Amino acid sequence: MNQRYPSVLLENAVNELATLPGVGRRTALRLALYMLRRDEGYAERFTSALLALRKEVKYCRVCHNICDNEMCGICADPRRDQSIVCVIENIKEVMAIENTGQFHGVYHVLGGIISPIDGIGPNDLEIDSLVERVAKGEVKEVILALSTTMEGDTTNFFIYRKLSPYQEVAISQIARGISIGDEIEYADEVTLGRSIINRTRFTINEE
Amino acid sequence: MNQRYPSVLLENAVNELATLPGVGRRTALRLALYMLRRDEGYAERFTSALLALRKEVKYCRVCHNICDNEMCGICADPRRDQSIVCVIENIKEVMAIENTGQFHGVYHVLGGIISPIDGIGPNDLEIDSLVERVAKGEVKEVILALSTTMEGDTTNFFIYRKLSPYQEVAISQIARGISIGDEIEYADEVTLGRSIINRTRFTINEE
Repeated sequence: MNQRYPSVLLENAVNELATLPGVGRRTALRLALYMLRRDEGYAERFTSALLALRKEVKYCRVCHNICDNEMCGICADPRRDQSIVCVIENIKEVMAIENTGQFHGVYHVLGGIISPIDGIGPNDLEIDSLVERVAKGEVKEVILALSTTMEGDTTNFFIYRKLSPYQEVAISQIARGISIGDEIEYADEVTLGRSIINRTRFTINEE
Repeated sequence: MNQRYPSVLLENAVNELATLPGVGRRTALRLALYMLRRDEGYAERFTSALLALRKEVKYCRVCHNICDNEMCGICADPRRDQSIVCVIENIKEVMAIENTGQFHGVYHVLGGIISPIDGIGPNDLEIDSLVERVAKGEVKEVILALSTTMEGDTTNFFIYRKLSPYQEVAISQIARGISIGDEIEYADEVTLGRSIINRTRFTINEE
């Protein structure tokens, strides 16, 4: 669509909005016109919130999750078990696991996974800092909770090897299996196969 | 989703992004995290383009289309026929019609349509300025190109009445009928009925 814009300002705004993931030029135009319809205060609040996020955000010096201070709320919480560290790819996974309310340990945010195609190697990730954390001797278990993809598996293996000198530390991974609510008939073979191999004792959930 | 955010800055950014039309909280989070992954220069360019749009945009003093100067490029273009004025709801329709390359007149942007439910009356729209434009005596035809909705029809009728003192001005509306490429079988009755009543002479399109 070789659109002619009535204003360079509009065109610039559309160009910038269209850089967002999942936003095409048509949606970008709709968003730009929405911005025009709202008052100036709205545009100021909107842009300053985004700019503040980018410029002022801090990363927890322990787990590298984003936060507003030196240390994130989870690492600073005395009720959390500092000896269990869940290794995840990014902030979104921290939020997803926190929402389950099932995990009471702490996290380690890698900031991505090893992906040669995207040019992301081990040194681009917070792997060394994970090893340092473990080397301090206070961690008893490291839970690997990365995506079940080739990149995730590669990263899991790399971390596993890096942590192998610390034999007193248990390394686990989150359970893979049939999603709750899923029909077995439609599960893929690999997942179904794994779910049989990794079967667990049958219990009545009395929650 | 009662999401807990690891950072107030992130939460603020998500809140602002989620005010955009069609953007839910999940998408807003994705956009905010994208903003975090990009460099600071990106966030600066992005936000300043939006802020500049909202703060510096001008409206053409003739047709009320948005523009960068006192008068828009279309009104200022000597090749455009100033005697044919196409009345449209908003900037997007100007862009849509301009993209067809079929219209060589000028526009009049109402800035909306009469909609009692949304509290938009004739005085909130650029109707008086349209009448003034016509009263100057240089307009020969006014083309009504508003949505085929009750609000559009109401607005059309209101403008028609307001312009009725200027009998030398032809008032037309864009053709309604079966869209090109549409199958007649699936056309709605009203459109099909209108397309029969407003039939045109058959011509071979030799373009």
